[in-house]
Amino acid sequence: MRENPLKALLNKLKNNEISVEDALAALKKYYYEDIGYARVDHQRAMRSGIPEVIFGLGKTPEQVAGIASALWGKGAEVLVTKATQEQFTAVKNVIPSAVFHKTPRLITSSPLDLPGVSPAAAVLSAGTADIPVAEEAAVSLEFFRIGVIRIYDVGVAGLHRLIDRIEDISACKAVIAVAGMDGALPSVVAGMIDVPVIAVPTSIGYGASFSGAAALLTMLNSCAPGIGVVNIDNGFGAAALTHAIIRSGGR
Amino acid sequence: MRENPLKALLNKLKNNEISVEDALAALKKYYYEDIGYARVDHQRAMRSGIPEVIFGLGKTPEQVAGIASALWGKGAEVLVTKATQEQFTAVKNVIPSAVFHKTPRLITSSPLDLPGVSPAAAVLSAGTADIPVAEEAAVSLEFFRIGVIRIYDVGVAGLHRLIDRIEDISACKAVIAVAGMDGALPSVVAGMIDVPVIAVPTSIGYGASFSGAAALLTMLNSCAPGIGVVNIDNGFGAAALTHAIIRSGGR
Amino acid sequence: MRENPLKALLNKLKNNEISVEDALAALKKYYYEDIGYARVDHQRAMRSGIPEVIFGLGKTPEQVAGIASALWGKGAEVLVTKATQEQFTAVKNVIPSAVFHKTPRLITSSPLDLPGVSPAAAVLSAGTADIPVAEEAAVSLEFFRIGVIRIYDVGVAGLHRLIDRIEDISACKAVIAVAGMDGALPSVVAGMIDVPVIAVPTSIGYGASFSGAAALLTMLNSCAPGIGVVNIDNGFGAAALTHAIIRSGGR
Amino acid sequence: MRENPLKALLNKLKNNEISVEDALAALKKYYYEDIGYARVDHQRAMRSGIPEVIFGLGKTPEQVAGIASALWGKGAEVLVTKATQEQFTAVKNVIPSAVFHKTPRLITSSPLDLPGVSPAAAVLSAGTADIPVAEEAAVSLEFFRIGVIRIYDVGVAGLHRLIDRIEDISACKAVIAVAGMDGALPSVVAGMIDVPVIAVPTSIGYGASFSGAAALLTMLNSCAPGIGVVNIDNGFGAAALTHAIIRSGGR
Amino acid sequence: MRENPLKALLNKLKNNEISVEDALAALKKYYYEDIGYARVDHQRAMRSGIPEVIFGLGKTPEQVAGIASALWGKGAEVLVTKATQEQFTAVKNVIPSAVFHKTPRLITSSPLDLPGVSPAAAVLSAGTADIPVAEEAAVSLEFFRIGVIRIYDVGVAGLHRLIDRIEDISACKAVIAVAGMDGALPSVVAGMIDVPVIAVPTSIGYGASFSGAAALLTMLNSCAPGIGVVNIDNGFGAAALTHAIIRSGGR
Amino acid sequence: MRENPLKALLNKLKNNEISVEDALAALKKYYYEDIGYARVDHQRAMRSGIPEVIFGLGKTPEQVAGIASALWGKGAEVLVTKATQEQFTAVKNVIPSAVFHKTPRLITSSPLDLPGVSPAAAVLSAGTADIPVAEEAAVSLEFFRIGVIRIYDVGVAGLHRLIDRIEDISACKAVIAVAGMDGALPSVVAGMIDVPVIAVPTSIGYGASFSGAAALLTMLNSCAPGIGVVNIDNGFGAAALTHAIIRSGGR
Amino acid sequence: MRENPLKALLNKLKNNEISVEDALAALKKYYYEDIGYARVDHQRAMRSGIPEVIFGLGKTPEQVAGIASALWGKGAEVLVTKATQEQFTAVKNVIPSAVFHKTPRLITSSPLDLPGVSPAAAVLSAGTADIPVAEEAAVSLEFFRIGVIRIYDVGVAGLHRLIDRIEDISACKAVIAVAGMDGALPSVVAGMIDVPVIAVPTSIGYGASFSGAAALLTMLNSCAPGIGVVNIDNGFGAAALTHAIIRSGGR
Amino acid sequence: MRENPLKALLNKLKNNEISVEDALAALKKYYYEDIGYARVDHQRAMRSGIPEVIFGLGKTPEQVAGIASALWGKGAEVLVTKATQEQFTAVKNVIPSAVFHKTPRLITSSPLDLPGVSPAAAVLSAGTADIPVAEEAAVSLEFFRIGVIRIYDVGVAGLHRLIDRIEDISACKAVIAVAGMDGALPSVVAGMIDVPVIAVPTSIGYGASFSGAAALLTMLNSCAPGIGVVNIDNGFGAAALTHAIIRSGGR
Repeated sequence: MRENPLKALLNKLKNNEISVEDALAALKKYYYEDIGYARVDHQRAMRSGIPEVIFGLGKTPEQVAGIASALWGKGAEVLVTKATQEQFTAVKNVIPSAVFHKTPRLITSSPLDLPGVSPAAAVLSAGTADIPVAEEAAVSLEFFRIGVIRIYDVGVAGLHRLIDRIEDISACKAVIAVAGMDGALPSVVAGMIDVPVIAVPTSIGYGASFSGAAALLTMLNSCAPGIGVVNIDNGFGAAALTHAIIRSGGR
Repeated sequence: MRENPLKALLNKLKNNEISVEDALAALKKYYYEDIGYARVDHQRAMRSGIPEVIFGLGKTPEQVAGIASALWGKGAEVLVTKATQEQFTAVKNVIPSAVFHKTPRLITSSPLDLPGVSPAAAVLSAGTADIPVAEEAAVSLEFFRIGVIRIYDVGVAGLHRLIDRIEDISACKAVIAVAGMDGALPSVVAGMIDVPVIAVPTSIGYGASFSGAAALLTMLNSCAPGIGVVNIDNGFGAAALTHAIIRSGGR
Repeated sequence: MRENPLKALLNKLKNNEISVEDALAALKKYYYEDIGYARVDHQRAMRSGIPEVIFGLGKTPEQVAGIASALWGKGAEVLVTKATQEQFTAVKNVIPSAVFHKTPRLITSSPLDLPGVSPAAAVLSAGTADIPVAEEAAVSLEFFRIGVIRIYDVGVAGLHRLIDRIEDISACKAVIAVAGMDGALPSVVAGMIDVPVIAVPTSIGYGASFSGAAALLTMLNSCAPGIGVVNIDNGFGAAALTHAIIRSGGR
Repeated sequence: MRENPLKALLNKLKNNEISVEDALAALKKYYYEDIGYARVDHQRAMRSGIPEVIFGLGKTPEQVAGIASALWGKGAEVLVTKATQEQFTAVKNVIPSAVFHKTPRLITSSPLDLPGVSPAAAVLSAGTADIPVAEEAAVSLEFFRIGVIRIYDVGVAGLHRLIDRIEDISACKAVIAVAGMDGALPSVVAGMIDVPVIAVPTSIGYGASFSGAAALLTMLNSCAPGIGVVNIDNGFGAAALTHAIIRSGGR
Repeated sequence: MRENPLKALLNKLKNNEISVEDALAALKKYYYEDIGYARVDHQRAMRSGIPEVIFGLGKTPEQVAGIASALWGKGAEVLVTKATQEQFTAVKNVIPSAVFHKTPRLITSSPLDLPGVSPAAAVLSAGTADIPVAEEAAVSLEFFRIGVIRIYDVGVAGLHRLIDRIEDISACKAVIAVAGMDGALPSVVAGMIDVPVIAVPTSIGYGASFSGAAALLTMLNSCAPGIGVVNIDNGFGAAALTHAIIRSGGR
Repeated sequence: MRENPLKALLNKLKNNEISVEDALAALKKYYYEDIGYARVDHQRAMRSGIPEVIFGLGKTPEQVAGIASALWGKGAEVLVTKATQEQFTAVKNVIPSAVFHKTPRLITSSPLDLPGVSPAAAVLSAGTADIPVAEEAAVSLEFFRIGVIRIYDVGVAGLHRLIDRIEDISACKAVIAVAGMDGALPSVVAGMIDVPVIAVPTSIGYGASFSGAAALLTMLNSCAPGIGVVNIDNGFGAAALTHAIIRSGGR
Repeated sequence: MRENPLKALLNKLKNNEISVEDALAALKKYYYEDIGYARVDHQRAMRSGIPEVIFGLGKTPEQVAGIASALWGKGAEVLVTKATQEQFTAVKNVIPSAVFHKTPRLITSSPLDLPGVSPAAAVLSAGTADIPVAEEAAVSLEFFRIGVIRIYDVGVAGLHRLIDRIEDISACKAVIAVAGMDGALPSVVAGMIDVPVIAVPTSIGYGASFSGAAALLTMLNSCAPGIGVVNIDNGFGAAALTHAIIRSGGR
Repeated sequence: MRENPLKALLNKLKNNEISVEDALAALKKYYYEDIGYARVDHQRAMRSGIPEVIFGLGKTPEQVAGIASALWGKGAEVLVTKATQEQFTAVKNVIPSAVFHKTPRLITSSPLDLPGVSPAAAVLSAGTADIPVAEEAAVSLEFFRIGVIRIYDVGVAGLHRLIDRIEDISACKAVIAVAGMDGALPSVVAGMIDVPVIAVPTSIGYGASFSGAAALLTMLNSCAPGIGVVNIDNGFGAAALTHAIIRSGGR
């Protein structure tokens, strides 16, 4: 709608270049492709600035490959999140250049290669066990062509590890802070820098971590301002928000 | 730390311009002022880019006025959130120019006046009852010298009201979407535009809204990417994140 | 009781056509058949309008087949929900015409074939991963001899996909809207049409979706009126309510 | 959209009867009236079959009266839910015929008077303390011009009270069953009749009723099929769904 | 203590029949046997009227067999709850007469055989899937030498099945009502009879049953008085309480 | 039904002493009296052994007095739970002998006076603050003509206070153990005696007591067998269960 | 028991200095004093090292004063927690030297005066609004004759304020860290020092702080080892644990 | 910082013994070693008194072995908690002396052997199934060179088993009380002794134990003062706190 396709269509109609029926049909096709189990959205990149990303959870390998193929066929790059090895095998059959990033369980339609892109975002993890989620964020950022600084295992129980890197972090346009257990990392980071902090709780922990709910609540209640929180383990969501922030700043 | 005061001090010390004891003392004073019940942080603006904001909840009027006075005395503008009429009266005694914004329950040390500032952020509310939280966000943005477009009562039960304003919204650098009850507004907005969306759940609702928890969960689980969530009723937090996003983009 | 069998019995008794003892015995047999681990209810169709449906979860294959056989023996069609392959094998042994619908995990005693039945209900799914629950609703409707329009993958992050089909949807007598994650689909649908909306939350999602609780709460708090909610993943329940609505309207 | 105003507009445009600009402007006005703190939706009745209902919670008396006045000015009847005495006073000033229904806390713009309307819906309450919510449902139904049978205090601890009225209940097109505490009433009712049952949990109870959450869960987990659940204490929501069911059946 | 062993010991001591040291030692041995990973309580039957029952969950087969052997060696009958096949094999090695009751996952040290014992308790299950928990209660009662009437699959969605058996049920000294999903059975039973009702929620259900929490809350909030609730799936606990009730009445 | 009124009616009908219509009418009247906002149940004492008790919460003083008056008019004694001073004043107008028990907030239609009744139940409280709930249980027991031993402030932090009274307690037919905060009292009591223990959690506590939920969970998870749990603060429920236990034992 | 009064009694008995009856009576009196609504525990100081502390919540002023008077009469100092002004007035009547500490809502039987006591514990608060709970801890420590360093408003959003005082803090024998909202303070403190940290969550916050539950979970999930957590707002509990730690170290 | 390495560095710098750049580099190296997926903290023992302990959950065997190897290479002893057999195999390859403690799932770099160390801490378990968590605490204490008394299976349902050992327990400097299900053990222990009690809830239980949440809440709400609580199943955390307490007392 930012591109105002509706107005263009109305003008064509006004000028009698197309019929009312044609206009309605055009609007439908324009939007998406119906492949039965999915309505593949070819227009989303234009509309919301983020390519159609396939959420792998709960989809069969055939469904994932079918959607990926439809997108790839229109020239788009494809990203599958929370993917399985089986889904990758199916995608590889239809997109031979596809790559499986095992740690973050992401499939990209092509290898990621960002020569000469200077880092615009930092991805921090509180612990080693949080790395899969942090990598989901980092690789997704690279899929969006954003350079990434990775700084892992800098939890608040050993603050000096974090303080050492503050200068690098504060030079970025956004920081993604990934933490499970007590989830305190984003609060501490946001107290030290002036860039937006995207907080990602992880399900790492046990007992009263309640599968990440404890870290999530910590982050929502942070006494440091300037933090936006995403769902537990949602590294991709943090990357998408960071993408929006950086693109918004560049306009 | 972004300004690297530590390095400056180390150099002075190196050059024998100050003693080790003086360096340590300097660091302490530099940081904050101890007024007994609070350690007023004169350096936060420099350090994290956001002036010290006073969270009114749970503080006595005397404490709020004391902290405000200390900040004002060093030349800072002051914002008090979740404030009461009693706190305002106490602040007014020490800062005569102070203003009480009743709907959002905010105190600012001076009237807000933004002539010629073009809007950079949109603040949306799903319902009329969400306006106090939306105003907390909007007035806080104005405190940060950011121009605001207010678009209220555009909940998803009547989508046409929202669609009408999409062009204005998508021209902003960030959008704050405030919603109670089902909390669906940010999902719908984020599906239509390509700017960062800050989602603010409110405690408006009853029964299974569980004081805003329902709206919070909806927002965290949004199927539209590019959304950062803040605490329930935390309009100020959304404004602070928006401030960080806009400043980050302007560097 | 709507058929008032009690009155008929009382009259027979009054007329000395049966003894008190016979009347009591008649009442018992009439109601159900005791097969040890279950009391098969042969009268439910008459009483509540819905054939005895077997809830497969937690029952052994032998129990499912035994109950199915008892119902089939009295001439009833049988539906098993949340069924397993093992339960199907056991049922197939006693009802050779039985069919297993794999995606929705339903067993029906006969193939479903609805030639010439025009659609009376629409079943919508927000995502591809919600299809198994949507199919549980759709196939159950067909078991009740109700024609179904299936419209899948029309979540609120791409509203145009939904808007295209609004005319078809609003021509139905009831709409079942199935959604996981943020669960926002029913709110948006109910804001656009004037037919009853049955909302089915699914357990699709992760993290703060809390196995479907987030979607459930969204639906209960919908700001659009005219929505009835069923249990998480309860596609059959939505179909049963839709069946009751359509039958009620036809009287 | 059911009335397809878009098509009419497109045809006018096609025929050069209006300009593109006029068409866009028409669409906006048509939809709603912006009164600052609310966007009053004059088209909702046409679009979704339910007049704009004002949710009183969290709105000032001035806001309620303002919205009511805007609706009344266009010839609509008005309903305010969860209303206060103060809101009524404000509404009475602008709509002299307005009536306050104290038990259910509803304001209607005119007295409700349904001579000769035969009952189409039954409203049941489990206890005496559930009556305010049951009355919210019953009076709302009358606002929608639907005749109501009220059957109160028929909880499952004394089933004979309910069984006596089963014939009356099963003659209705829909049944609203209101219950707090254990919330078992809808399960029992739905096991005995073949009309749709709308279940309304109430916040009546204490301790482990958790403000109605216990009753809500009972209803969602009912082992009797054909039940749709609405939010805790949401008598109006049940009435709106019942309205949609009855209207849908009448087409 | 009911048997007042302390007084006996004090008297012996008083009469110089034993030394202070011996008295202390006697008290210790009397109480239990320390086998390293467990302190087997030989006195519990005397003290609390219930033989030491072994809770199988989380214990190794060796631990279960070791404790069983120690009890068996002192002449006690043994019951193991929530047992596994592996634990049974280990117990069988040390107690050849042991029997494994598969449905309720109980091990008893001897076959249960209650010739001529008239039933004193009724065990009801709402559904077929609740039978394992109901059997845990029923077999445990038989272990306590209490005769049992089993009445299964009498959930509230088909009340007539229950009403048929009310006379049998009300002749018992206690009733155990086992139900998952909506958990409404105990409320309805307690409204019809005047014997104590022990309510056992089960984890049968899905979605918003939250693993039995919904049924538990229903039972705690029952509007029918005279109900005691035990933990989810705790058939044994219900049997132990029933045992205490019957024994208490027999004094 | 225990008295089998149905059979008597059937026999009268069989013998032509009454008509079918009269039989149906008889059944209805027999059951309850409809006073508009309540259906007063005159038969409950016969049917379930417990007189109709009025739950005061959420009822107006007029409603409470109306129901009390209807019961009193048929010769019954009346108990109102969770009552207010206003409700008492209204009841006193229609039943001059009524008494308000302030600590437990109970109204009884006559003074309670149990000369020569020997105690059959013990009521224990863990702390002083739990006494109102303990008194609700104790006074309710006295309303049921059951003698009570009160033993208050015997929480587990000072076990010797409890141990002193074990002999008295174990001589009763049932024990009600009332506790807030950690709720550990019933576990400890049940480990020492062989009579049924009714556990009543209270809402006394703060923070992570979550209004009694912590105590409730403790009691449900007791590792001592023979405990039945009632709702938080439900002293009356414990008394009703105790009443059923004692009556059941006396048959 | 640490003083072994039982052994002394047994020896007296052995030597025929007292009768069995006298021994039993002695044990009872020794333990506590029964004043009806409370069993005042005169022996607790000897037994558990902590004087009987009166928990004010839910007690009437008369009850508090009565218990305080009984303790005071035996020569003990008295502490009342979560006290009200009314309770203080009642205590003051029976203990004229009593003092009300308003911020922490504590009553002590005498003024606290610790001349020459060097600090052994530090009490930290994250914010100004946490001070009442911090003062409950600090004043309770002083009641136990433990010197306290108070360091308030040192939350993690401004870490430098905390780092300044680390040397003072690490010289203590225990540290009490009080924090609401994100509750991150104890994690950060425990990562920097080697003394035991007692973490006290407070109910300060709003929205998703869920009355302190968020801070509580953060603290339980701390990734820094060496932290013990107490109940939300339980400053006294933290002081009691600190008291036990310091006394234990001094043996 | 207790060792004040910063001051030493500053003095060297002041004396021109090192350059500013060298000082900064020194600080970094000093702190930790970056091995990519982890920042191994060689200074933690000095800083917080507890050697770097590796939390095994969520780490690959390679990561665990890599971190262990880095620590071992600097001369430290290593402890891995929540470890798997695969992680042990990997560690054994790089540290041949490593030992796997199977019950508590702990890896230590060397066998634990504490000849002549007298016990300073007691570890209690309520049940046999709680032993793995109790052993995690006990073996961790031994890793810290603290002698341990193990007293297992002393739950509150058989208090005499606990009372027997009170003298041994009260001679320790700290007590760790481990309990699942009702979690009542720490309350009872703390009421009898005057040493600090560390309460460890376990996930042992079922149904309403909610994976240990019930035991956790019991412990947080204990009415006995002097208890610190750690996370569910966190035996190591209890040992670390005990270590801090004992070391703090020894200074």
